[in-house]
Amino acid sequence: MEGMRTRLFHAESLRDFVSRVFGFYGVPPRDAAVAADVLVTADLRGIDSHGVSRLRGYVDQIIAGKINPRPQVRIAREWPATAQVDGDNGLGLVVAPRANQICVDKAQSAGAATVSVFNSNHYGIAGYYPLQAVECGLIGWSITNSGSLVAPLWGVERMLGTNPIAIAFPCATEPPVVIDFATSATSLGKIELANDQGAELPPYLAIDCAGEMTLDPSQVLNGGALLPLGGTREAGGHKGYGLAAAVDILCGVLGGASWGPFTPQFLLSSSKRDGAMGKGLGHMFGAIRIDSMVEQSSFLHSMDEWVRTMRATKSIPGRQVVIPGVPEHEHQVAREESGIPLLSSVVDDLEGIAKLTSIPLDLGSKAP
Amino acid sequence: MEGMRTRLFHAESLRDFVSRVFGFYGVPPRDAAVAADVLVTADLRGIDSHGVSRLRGYVDQIIAGKINPRPQVRIAREWPATAQVDGDNGLGLVVAPRANQICVDKAQSAGAATVSVFNSNHYGIAGYYPLQAVECGLIGWSITNSGSLVAPLWGVERMLGTNPIAIAFPCATEPPVVIDFATSATSLGKIELANDQGAELPPYLAIDCAGEMTLDPSQVLNGGALLPLGGTREAGGHKGYGLAAAVDILCGVLGGASWGPFTPQFLLSSSKRDGAMGKGLGHMFGAIRIDSMVEQSSFLHSMDEWVRTMRATKSIPGRQVVIPGVPEHEHQVAREESGIPLLSSVVDDLEGIAKLTSIPLDLGSKAP
Repeated sequence: MEGMRTRLFHAESLRDFVSRVFGFYGVPPRDAAVAADVLVTADLRGIDSHGVSRLRGYVDQIIAGKINPRPQVRIAREWPATAQVDGDNGLGLVVAPRANQICVDKAQSAGAATVSVFNSNHYGIAGYYPLQAVECGLIGWSITNSGSLVAPLWGVERMLGTNPIAIAFPCATEPPVVIDFATSATSLGKIELANDQGAELPPYLAIDCAGEMTLDPSQVLNGGALLPLGGTREAGGHKGYGLAAAVDILCGVLGGASWGPFTPQFLLSSSKRDGAMGKGLGHMFGAIRIDSMVEQSSFLHSMDEWVRTMRATKSIPGRQVVIPGVPEHEHQVAREESGIPLLSSVVDDLEGIAKLTSIPLDLGSKAP
Repeated sequence: MEGMRTRLFHAESLRDFVSRVFGFYGVPPRDAAVAADVLVTADLRGIDSHGVSRLRGYVDQIIAGKINPRPQVRIAREWPATAQVDGDNGLGLVVAPRANQICVDKAQSAGAATVSVFNSNHYGIAGYYPLQAVECGLIGWSITNSGSLVAPLWGVERMLGTNPIAIAFPCATEPPVVIDFATSATSLGKIELANDQGAELPPYLAIDCAGEMTLDPSQVLNGGALLPLGGTREAGGHKGYGLAAAVDILCGVLGGASWGPFTPQFLLSSSKRDGAMGKGLGHMFGAIRIDSMVEQSSFLHSMDEWVRTMRATKSIPGRQVVIPGVPEHEHQVAREESGIPLLSSVVDDLEGIAKLTSIPLDLGSKAP
């Protein structure tokens, strides 16, 4: 965010604000607090694209009656190590934490568990959920399907979402290893940013409406599509497509939610058809109890060793091998201390919501 | 294999030959038959790099005393939905099918299961195991770590294996969807092939010994490394690195096997250190009982619909969107009928083994 005007907010103030806003629109207090925590955790961890900047998107969908603010989340099917959860068209930020907790509880008793969710909506950063499992001492993973933006290899149409995958592992003294990424070669946000800045895209990230690889972001936005991770066949585009497909089938077809090109879009403005919410987005959560496989303490110490071994990899000049999750952890430590910098445009947006709801937006007592 | 001399073998004859060869080297008959099926299935499905062409590699390791031909495979730890299996340094082709069956059985009773394996060795194609689960009507997945060939993003050293991921889904009338790929941008086999042919590599697949991207395959073989899927940071190299890391941690650290740069190499000649077998390779298997989530028949029909929807994607001229697993299925149907074409060099190799063991290598009665 270099060169752009920002203001610093204390995490606690943002949590409080977001929570009260969701409450204003009918979300029960406990649910609203959880939803706020999911969003503010994204900001704390430096994933600004998925934090409070999206509050308006969620709120708009509640106002439009597309999302149910008071869902009756229930287990539709249940086995010792699995559950299928009906999200009752609630906020993904409310439904997903509930389902993830069911998964953690089942893993505690069965050793490992898998929980699918249908009738849900956008659930924020995929990494939030495995981190909750890590706080309970488990390994956690999470996947979700999403509105279609990605063309299968050699395809010309948007048929799959950016379908992210996240998995997190606790360590003894090192921060948790958190792997969290979209299965597309890049994100729509990066295409939009390049378009706003009049910049060219790096090669092999996206195609135009004829399916030709393009460096022009406006061509992607106007009927083009993102490429799957890998990009070309030679560089493994079929692998990214396969990953996105697996996520879509697990979350959509197996979970009982919408799938492929029929998944609902996040933003109202980009909804492709009426009533497109259908059976909503699907998520899947997994958790593994470490001591069902190896001694917990020996695992945690081996993880420290794994992290230190990878970090010590000889690297190219001026770079160091990054441990997944560590930059986000460093952001979190710094932003919990010094506050979360929000872009003026985001602050304007939140102030608009504050005015509409009469809920004050404070910088927070500890914020600079 | 265009332009190269081949001979056709009947699958059943190859299975018989491989099985008897393993038997000759001390593998019990039932185990030898399973190991032969894993290898020949790779050939049937057109994954020639992982089929009987590797028989010598496995046999050499048994002869050298690096692999135990008669392992006592046992469950070391067990929870309702998990197990940790000790492979007793057996052939991966023997240990892995056993562990995968344990996983399927546990999924049948718990809804889903996860089984890790340590003290194992190279297990053939990752897709074999989920296909076994699919034959039981389940969804299956499988991952394994492997000898290090891949540099983490920005690294210069080989720290991770090509660590493949496979997952398979049954359909009602369409062939199963099988996603099966290495988490590296390319394979060592493709680098070696380009080197043999004096060809240039496509960009962003591999680096030289200084960590610079190279198009020269000999530079990769002489102290270079493969790049993770995605290649560069802009194109998502951190994602492929994250996937490879997750596979390594699950199979190695959680499974209790060797990990990262300490994993044993497949070929004796490339063993980096004495006694490097350590706790061997690690695998992990997963299975999900479909009716623990949704009605089995409704899932199978939705899968057919998913396949047809993706296949009908508008595609670029001269190409069609491929359903993962379908080309391999078509190979299998054709090769079961017409025989498996083996390169002369592979036939020579097998004939060498035939001579050494006095086990005849026949084309097979039904082969042309």
